[in-house]
Amino acid sequence: MSKLIGNAIFGQSGGPTSVINASAAGVFTEALRQTGVIEKVYGAANGIVGILNEKFYDMGQEDPAELELLKTTPSSALGSCRYKLADLKDDDTDYKRLLEVFKKHNIRYFFYNGGNDSMDTCNKISKLLQQSGYECRVIGVPKTIDNDLFGTDHCPGFASAAKYIATTTMEVYLDARVYDTGMITVIEIMGRHAGWLTASAALAAHKGHGPDLIYLPEVDFDIDKMLADVKKVYAKESKVIIAVSEGVQTKEGKFIPELVGEVAVDAFGHKQLGGTATVLANYLKKEIGCKVRGIELSLMQRCAAHLASKTDVDESFLAGQTAVRCAVDGMTDYMVGFQRAEGSEYKCEIKLIKLDDVANTESKVPLEWINDEGNFVNEKFIEYALPLIQGESEVAIEDGLPRFAKLKKVLAV
Amino acid sequence: MSKLIGNAIFGQSGGPTSVINASAAGVFTEALRQTGVIEKVYGAANGIVGILNEKFYDMGQEDPAELELLKTTPSSALGSCRYKLADLKDDDTDYKRLLEVFKKHNIRYFFYNGGNDSMDTCNKISKLLQQSGYECRVIGVPKTIDNDLFGTDHCPGFASAAKYIATTTMEVYLDARVYDTGMITVIEIMGRHAGWLTASAALAAHKGHGPDLIYLPEVDFDIDKMLADVKKVYAKESKVIIAVSEGVQTKEGKFIPELVGEVAVDAFGHKQLGGTATVLANYLKKEIGCKVRGIELSLMQRCAAHLASKTDVDESFLAGQTAVRCAVDGMTDYMVGFQRAEGSEYKCEIKLIKLDDVANTESKVPLEWINDEGNFVNEKFIEYALPLIQGESEVAIEDGLPRFAKLKKVLAV
Repeated sequence: MSKLIGNAIFGQSGGPTSVINASAAGVFTEALRQTGVIEKVYGAANGIVGILNEKFYDMGQEDPAELELLKTTPSSALGSCRYKLADLKDDDTDYKRLLEVFKKHNIRYFFYNGGNDSMDTCNKISKLLQQSGYECRVIGVPKTIDNDLFGTDHCPGFASAAKYIATTTMEVYLDARVYDTGMITVIEIMGRHAGWLTASAALAAHKGHGPDLIYLPEVDFDIDKMLADVKKVYAKESKVIIAVSEGVQTKEGKFIPELVGEVAVDAFGHKQLGGTATVLANYLKKEIGCKVRGIELSLMQRCAAHLASKTDVDESFLAGQTAVRCAVDGMTDYMVGFQRAEGSEYKCEIKLIKLDDVANTESKVPLEWINDEGNFVNEKFIEYALPLIQGESEVAIEDGLPRFAKLKKVLAV
Repeated sequence: MSKLIGNAIFGQSGGPTSVINASAAGVFTEALRQTGVIEKVYGAANGIVGILNEKFYDMGQEDPAELELLKTTPSSALGSCRYKLADLKDDDTDYKRLLEVFKKHNIRYFFYNGGNDSMDTCNKISKLLQQSGYECRVIGVPKTIDNDLFGTDHCPGFASAAKYIATTTMEVYLDARVYDTGMITVIEIMGRHAGWLTASAALAAHKGHGPDLIYLPEVDFDIDKMLADVKKVYAKESKVIIAVSEGVQTKEGKFIPELVGEVAVDAFGHKQLGGTATVLANYLKKEIGCKVRGIELSLMQRCAAHLASKTDVDESFLAGQTAVRCAVDGMTDYMVGFQRAEGSEYKCEIKLIKLDDVANTESKVPLEWINDEGNFVNEKFIEYALPLIQGESEVAIEDGLPRFAKLKKVLAV
C-alpha cells in the first residue's frame, strides 16, 4: 500500500456526549503524530456544515495540554450539526461542493464522529469520493449515548451516560424514601427508539438502590398494566421508583403525554406537550393519591463528564486513534467498532465494520434481556453493561470545579 | 460542671442533603467514644416522629466501617420528617409524650439536625426540658442546602449543592451551544425564599462556562424586564443560559407559573401548576421563537453525594462531632455554627448560637451582592462561595458505582 500524503479533517455530528471529545483527542493526537503522511490536521466547525462552508480550524496550532484536556471535556468542542445530506440521485449540490472543498484543501483523510444519521452521512461521502476517483480515506468514529449503532458491541458515550444514570438513580433512591409517607418517583431517561439508557437504571437496582419498574421502548406500553404494576409495588413498599424511556409508546404509536391526555395550555391557549416524567407523575398522583415527583435527567445524562466511565473515556480515545491508524494503513469506508472477547473478564478488541452495514440500522435491547412482565431487565443486561461503567474519569480540577479544554480554534482558511 | 451520665439520641429532620449523614457520622462516632458519660447512642427513626413513637435504633450495634461510609452517603439514613410541634400553650400532648420517652429511656443528650423549622422544634424541646426540670442537654446541628440559617457563616449541605449546581451548569453550558442555531436554556434551582443556591450558578460563570442571567427570590421579579434581558443577550450571542430560582416572584407575590398563565390540564380538566423551568422556556420560545430547553435540577442538587464538596463533608462531620463534645462539656440550648476567620485564606471556626436566636430567622443573599440590574451576583458572592466548594469528596466505589452505608438499624426498644 503506497503512502497517501495530504491533509486530514475531523468532524463531530449529532447530539454530544460526555466523551465525544475523547475521540477527538484520539484523532488529533494520532493525526498530528503522523508527520510525513498527514500534513495538516483540521477540525471542522459544526461537522459537515463546516466543510460545506469551508470553516475549519488548524488543530496543529493547539496546545497539546489542551488537546489532552479534551478527554475530560464534555460536549462537542468543534461544534456539531444535524445536517442531513440529500440522496445523491435527488440533489448533487452538496456533494459537488464537498468534493470541491476536499480537492482545494487536499483533504485525503476524512474522519466523522457520530451516531446513525452521521454514519449515513459518512457513508454517502465515502461513496461519492470513491465514485469521483478522488483518493481519500474515510473512517467513521462511533458516538451515541443511545448505544444503537449496528455491528459494534457498544458505542462510545453510552457507558458514561449509563454510569451517570445508575449513580443518580442510586442517589435519588435514597432521597425519595426519607419520609414515612408514600411517594412515587418517575425518572425520565433519553432514548427515543432504543432502551439501553433506561435499562441502565437496573445497574442501580443491582446495587440495592434502584428502580422497582423499568419501561423500555422495545416493549409496547400499556398504561393500565403500568398502573397495576405501580399499585402492586406501592401496596407493599409505599415507595415506588419508575425508570421510563422518553420513547415508550403504545402499540398504536402513542407516547405517554398524548396517552394521558395531558396538555399544557399557555395564556394564549397554545398547547404544549409536557415531559413524560411530569405527566406520568401527575397521572399517578391522581390515580393513587400519594406524593409524586417527576425527574427528567435532561442534558445532564449526556454531558456529566465529571461522572464519565474511565473505560468509556479510554475506549473513545482509542476509537479515534484507531481510525487514524487504519486510514494511514490504507483502510477506508469503515466504521471503527468494538468486539467483546469471550470469557468472564471484560476485554474489548477493535473491529472494523463496513459503513454500508452500519448506516441507518438500529441496535435495540434484545427482547430476551427483558422480563416476561415487560417491566424490568434481567441479569443478562447487568452482565453486559456493568463492565462498561468501570473506572472513574480523572477530571482536571481547578478551584473545586472542572478545568475544561480551552481551544484556540485558529481558522485554517 | 458535673458529669451528666445517660443516653443520647440524634434525629434528622427536613429535606435531606448530600452531607447530612456526615453530621450523623460525626455525632455517632463521637458519642460512641464518650464511654462512661454517654451510655447508649440512639438514632431516631424519622426525627422527632421516631421519638414520639418510641422507634429508635441502637447505633452501638452498627459496624464502625458503615458509620464511616455515612460521610459519603446522601439523604437521611435514619429517615426524616416534616413534623411541626404545636406551641406548648396551645397543645401540650406531644411535649408530655416527649418528656415521658426521654425519662423512660434516660435520654440526657438530644441532638437535632435540620434547618429553620427543625431548629424551631429543637428550641421548643430545649425549653420544655428546662421548664420541666429534667436535665438533658440539647444541641442543634445545622443542615440545609438553602443556606438560610441565621447566625452561621454558612450551613452544612449548601456547599455540596452549590458545587453540584456550578459543575452541572458548566457541563450544560458546553452542551447547550454545540449547534450553530439559537438556543435558550433555563435552569431551575431550588430555594423558595433565599437565592444562595441559584447564585451558585455564578461560580460556573466565574470559570467562563456559566449563565448569562441569574434571578434570585431576593429581587422582585419582572417578566418584561427579564424578557428584555434575554433578548439583549440573545441578539449578541444567540445562546442564552438563565439560572432561575423556583422561588422568584413579582412584587405582588406571583410565581412564574402563575405569571406566565400556563397551566397543565389533564384528561379530566384538572389544572396542574407546571415547573418554573418548563413554563419559562415555553414562554421564551413563544416570545423569541428559537429552540429552548427547561432543566430542573430537582432532587439531584441535594443528593448528588458523588460531587460533594470535601470542605462541606469535613465541616458537616465536625458540626456533629462538636455538638456532642459541647454537650458533654455542659453546654445546652445552642446550635453549632461556623464563623469565618478574617483574611484571604479560608478558615472556619466553630461558634455556638443560642437556639432562641436561630429559630425561624432566615438569612438571605445580601442585596449588595446582587448587581444593579437585579440579574446577576457580583464578586462578593464568588469570594464567599468559592472556598466552600473546594475539595472532592472521596466516595467509596464498588463495581464502578458508589458504595453507600448499609446500616443494620437494630431497634432499641
